[in-house]
Amino acid sequence: MEVTRKNYKDCLNTVYSAIEEADFLAIDGEFSGISDGPNVSALTNGLDTPEERYTKLKKHSMDFLLFQFGLCTFKYDQTQSKYITKPFNFYVFPKPFNRTSPDIKFICQSSSIDFLASQGFDFNKVFCHGIPYLNKEEEAQLREQTEERRNQHANGVGTPSYISPSSSKSPAHVPDEHKVFINKVVEKVEALFTNSDKTLDLEPCTGFQRKLIYQTLNWKFPKGLHVETMETEKKERYIQVSKVDEEERKRREQQKLEREQEELNDAVGFSRVIHAISKSGKLVVGHNMLLDVMHTIHQFYCPLPELLFYLFVFQELITNTSLYTVISRKTAEGFPSYDTAQEQLHEAGYDAYITGLCFISMANYLGSFLTPPKAYISARSKLIEPFFNKLFLMRIIDIPYLNITGPDLQPKRDHVLYVTFPKEWKTSDLYQLFSAFGNIQVSWIDDTSAFVSLSQTDQVQIAMNTSRYAESYRIQTYAEYVQGKQQDKEKLGQPAKSWGEGSWVKPHYTAGGISNYYHKRTDNHVKHIGSGWLLPKSESCNWIN
Amino acid sequence: MEVTRKNYKDCLNTVYSAIEEADFLAIDGEFSGISDGPNVSALTNGLDTPEERYTKLKKHSMDFLLFQFGLCTFKYDQTQSKYITKPFNFYVFPKPFNRTSPDIKFICQSSSIDFLASQGFDFNKVFCHGIPYLNKEEEAQLREQTEERRNQHANGVGTPSYISPSSSKSPAHVPDEHKVFINKVVEKVEALFTNSDKTLDLEPCTGFQRKLIYQTLNWKFPKGLHVETMETEKKERYIQVSKVDEEERKRREQQKLEREQEELNDAVGFSRVIHAISKSGKLVVGHNMLLDVMHTIHQFYCPLPELLFYLFVFQELITNTSLYTVISRKTAEGFPSYDTAQEQLHEAGYDAYITGLCFISMANYLGSFLTPPKAYISARSKLIEPFFNKLFLMRIIDIPYLNITGPDLQPKRDHVLYVTFPKEWKTSDLYQLFSAFGNIQVSWIDDTSAFVSLSQTDQVQIAMNTSRYAESYRIQTYAEYVQGKQQDKEKLGQPAKSWGEGSWVKPHYTAGGISNYYHKRTDNHVKHIGSGWLLPKSESCNWIN
Repeated sequence: MEVTRKNYKDCLNTVYSAIEEADFLAIDGEFSGISDGPNVSALTNGLDTPEERYTKLKKHSMDFLLFQFGLCTFKYDQTQSKYITKPFNFYVFPKPFNRTSPDIKFICQSSSIDFLASQGFDFNKVFCHGIPYLNKEEEAQLREQTEERRNQHANGVGTPSYISPSSSKSPAHVPDEHKVFINKVVEKVEALFTNSDKTLDLEPCTGFQRKLIYQTLNWKFPKGLHVETMETEKKERYIQVSKVDEEERKRREQQKLEREQEELNDAVGFSRVIHAISKSGKLVVGHNMLLDVMHTIHQFYCPLPELLFYLFVFQELITNTSLYTVISRKTAEGFPSYDTAQEQLHEAGYDAYITGLCFISMANYLGSFLTPPKAYISARSKLIEPFFNKLFLMRIIDIPYLNITGPDLQPKRDHVLYVTFPKEWKTSDLYQLFSAFGNIQVSWIDDTSAFVSLSQTDQVQIAMNTSRYAESYRIQTYAEYVQGKQQDKEKLGQPAKSWGEGSWVKPHYTAGGISNYYHKRTDNHVKHIGSGWLLPKSESCNWIN
Repeated sequence: MEVTRKNYKDCLNTVYSAIEEADFLAIDGEFSGISDGPNVSALTNGLDTPEERYTKLKKHSMDFLLFQFGLCTFKYDQTQSKYITKPFNFYVFPKPFNRTSPDIKFICQSSSIDFLASQGFDFNKVFCHGIPYLNKEEEAQLREQTEERRNQHANGVGTPSYISPSSSKSPAHVPDEHKVFINKVVEKVEALFTNSDKTLDLEPCTGFQRKLIYQTLNWKFPKGLHVETMETEKKERYIQVSKVDEEERKRREQQKLEREQEELNDAVGFSRVIHAISKSGKLVVGHNMLLDVMHTIHQFYCPLPELLFYLFVFQELITNTSLYTVISRKTAEGFPSYDTAQEQLHEAGYDAYITGLCFISMANYLGSFLTPPKAYISARSKLIEPFFNKLFLMRIIDIPYLNITGPDLQPKRDHVLYVTFPKEWKTSDLYQLFSAFGNIQVSWIDDTSAFVSLSQTDQVQIAMNTSRYAESYRIQTYAEYVQGKQQDKEKLGQPAKSWGEGSWVKPHYTAGGISNYYHKRTDNHVKHIGSGWLLPKSESCNWIN
C-alpha cells in the first residue's frame, strides 16, 4: 500500500492494526544520499571498529533525507500455515507546517538520486505528497508553543482566536493614536448586541490593533461573545465577532482545542508510525540496516548520541536473499501482491517484504536442525534470540555485526599493519612492497595510509624489520597504531580508554556505570524499537519500557 | 518548449537558431533553495552594501541547485509589427556521466521545495530526465582525461579500445605469473591470422591482464589488428581482436574519435546553451536576477570570485510586471502559446517570457517620451543603454542596483545608527527606544544588532548623546560601524580599503589596476553573457570578446 500525505490519515488505523496483529515487522529506507565526505571505500574501511564506523556514518550520512520508509508486517495464519503480509510504502518529506516551523535543509547526492531514478523512483510523491514528521524535541516544542499561545489568548495578547471569559482583569492600555479606532470597534460590537446579526466582520488590521481589540473586548464583554482571527483570500487577517450563549461559546472552544490537537498530530505525521512500531514491542528485521536505524532515530526520534555504547533494544537478523523462494506466503487482500519474479527492488516497501521473507526462511532453516525437525519457527522462538540486536556491519572483514546490547566482538588484528606512504602510491605499489609475503589484503584509510593484512602473523616482525630503514613509507603494527590514535585523542582532552589484553581497545564503561543503559534480555519477550535506542548518557531513563 | 535529457540533442539546433535570430533574450532560474544559513531578513538586510549582499549570497546560496532554466527568445517581426517569442524550459541535473566523474552534492530547502510543489513543479523531470552539465574546469579536466586515455592507449597501457600502429617500441614486461596466460592469447591471435574468422573474443580478464594484452599485441602485431575492450551483459570486460586492413583500421579509429567527441559534448550538456548565449552577444534581461546570474556562472561556468569589483558585461533591466499587457506579441509555431491570463508563474520558461514582455513594455514606454513619440523601441536602442549591466538588489533601501561595469552607487547613510542590544530585544523595543524621534526604519543584522534609520540626520547627535550612559544597549554612527568593521578586517590581514569623502567605503581598485577588467561600453553594441562575467583577477582575458 502506497501512503502519501493524501491518504495518510485514512490509512493510519490500517497501519496501526497491521502492526498490532503482526508476528514480526520488516523495515527498509531509501535515502537522498550516502556520504557527504569520504567515498564509499573510505567510509566503509574493512578494518573499521564498530565505533569508528558509527562515528563516520553519523558525521557523513545524517544530512541526507530518508524519504521512503518501507514497512512490511508478517502475521502467521495457523489454519492456512501461511504468512499474511501487509507491505506499506511511506513517502516522507519535512513539509514546513507553518511560518515558524523549522525549515529543514537536506543534501542530495547526484549518484544516489540517479540510481533511484534509474529504478523508476517517483520523486514527485516525495516532494509534492510526502508525509511530514517531527522528532521528539520538535514535537515537544510545538506542544509548548500551542500551549503558550492558548495561555496568551486567555490573557488577551498575541493573535488568539478565542477568548476565555475569566481572563482580562483590567482594561487594555490603548495608545492615543489607536483610541479612535478602538472606540469605533466597541461601538460596532455594541450595535451587534442590539441588532439581529449573528456575526460582525471587522476590517483587516495590524497585529497590534488585533491585540488591542482582543484585550478591549475581553474586558468590556466578558460574556456572550466569541472573537476569532480569520484570513481573507488575500491572506489579510481580520477579526470576526460572533454573539454566542455560554453553551455555544464552550462548544466552539472545545472545537478549537480539538482542531489544535489534530493539527499537532498532523505535524507529528509519519513519526506516529515509528512510535507505534516502538510501542508494539514487535521483532523488527532489516537487511544491512545500520543506516536505516540511524536515519530512523535521527529523523523521527532524537539526535544521535556521540557514542554507540549506551543503547539498545532493536532487532536485526542477518538476512540471506538466496533462501526466500521456499516460503509459503500470501499478501492480505487490498494490498499489492508482490511477485518476487517481477522484482521491484529499491522500492522500500518491496525491500522490506523481501527482507521479511528471508527472515522466515532463515528461522525455518534453523528449525531443520532440531530433533525432530520443525517446519515452522515463530518469530518468538528462542532459536532466533542469539540474533537479536545485532546490526550487520557492511564490508568489515572481521567484525560481522555491531552488538547493541553488549560489548562488541574484539577480533585479534595482530596480522595487520598500518602503512603510510606518498600520495602517489596505488594499491599495486602496496602489493609490490609486500610481494614477498604472498596474499595480502589492502584496506585504504585515506590518500596516504592503509591497513595491510598479512596472511600469517609471524610475517609481521619480518615486515617491521625490513621497513626500519625505508624512507618513502612507514610501517606500524595495528597495536601501535591504536595506541598512537588514543594518545592523539588524549592530547585533545578526550577521555582515555581502558586497555584489555592483546592491545585491544575495550568499550569505555564500568559494570556500575553502564547498568542504567544496558539491559540484556533473557526472557522470551523482545523490546520495542525506540526504547533506549542509542540513548545518550545524559538522558533520563523514564521512557525505557 | 520543454527540454529534458530525452529530447535535448534533437532540440539543440532549434535553441541555437532561436538565440542567433533573436533581438534579445530573457532568462529565469528555479532553485532547490535560497539560504543554508541566515533567514531571509538577515540574508537581505535593507542596508547591505552590494559587496556584502554578494558575499552573503555566495556563501549561503551556492550549494543549492539551479534545476530549471528558463530561456525565452524575442525577435521583432517588422512586417507584422509583432514580437515572435520562443520560450524554452530546460530541466537540469548533474547526472554523473561515468564512474570517475564528480558526484555532486547539493542542498534542498524544504520551504523552497514545498513552494515549487504547490506550483505544480515536476521533480521527476529534474531528477530522472534532467540534462547534465559541466563547468569550464570540469570540461577541461574531462578533455584532458580523454586525451590522456587516448595517449595511454597509443602506448598500450590502461584499458584502451584501439591501438595506434606506431606506438609500442619495445616488448611489454610480462610478470612470470602471467606468462602462460599471455602466450595463449598470442597463439590465439596468430591462429586468427590463418583462419577465416574476422574477430576473436577473448575471455573476460582483469584490467592488469588487459593492459598486458594490449602491450603485447601492439608490439607483436603493429599492423592488421583492431583491439577493443568490450563489456558482456554482466558488465565483465573482455577484449575483442579483429583482423582489419589499414583503411578499416583508420575508419574505426576515426569512428572512435567521433564517439569520444560526442560523449564529451553530451557531458558538457546544458552548459552548451549557456556558451551559445554568451557567444551570441545578445541583450539578456531578467527579473530580480542577481541569484540567477550567480547560479548560472557558478554551475555552468566557473567558481565565483571573492569580490564583485573585477568584471563584467551582463545585461539587466529593472522590470515592472504591471505594464506587460500592452504588447503585441505572438508565439512562434511549435512553441506552447503562453496565455498571460492563465498564469503559469514559477515555471522558469514562463517567468522568462513574462520578463521579456515587461522589458518590451518598458522600452516602448521610454519611446513615448521622444519627440515625436516612437511606438517601437528596439533592444539595440541607445534609450535603454543606461539600464545595461545593472542587477537589481532586492530589499536594499537606498541602492537599487548593483552596477557590474562601474563603481556602485554610494548613498549617504549619515541618518543611520548601528545599535547592539540584548538578544531578548524585539523590533518593538527598538521602536520604543527611539519613540522620541518619530518614524524610524529597523533593518535587523542578527539577534543582537540592527541598523536604525532615523528620518532626520540632525537627530543622530541627540541619539548618540542620549545613549552615552545606557547600559543595556550601544549606539554607533554608520561611519563608526564601517570603520570598526574595516579595522577588524585589517586585523585578520585583509587588505585595507581606500576611504572617500563622507566616510564611505570605495571599491578597492585604481584606474590602472582595473583597466583589464573594466570595460565601460559606449557603442551601440551590447556584450555577451559570460564574457568577462565576474572574472577573477588571475584569469587571462583572452576570452573577453
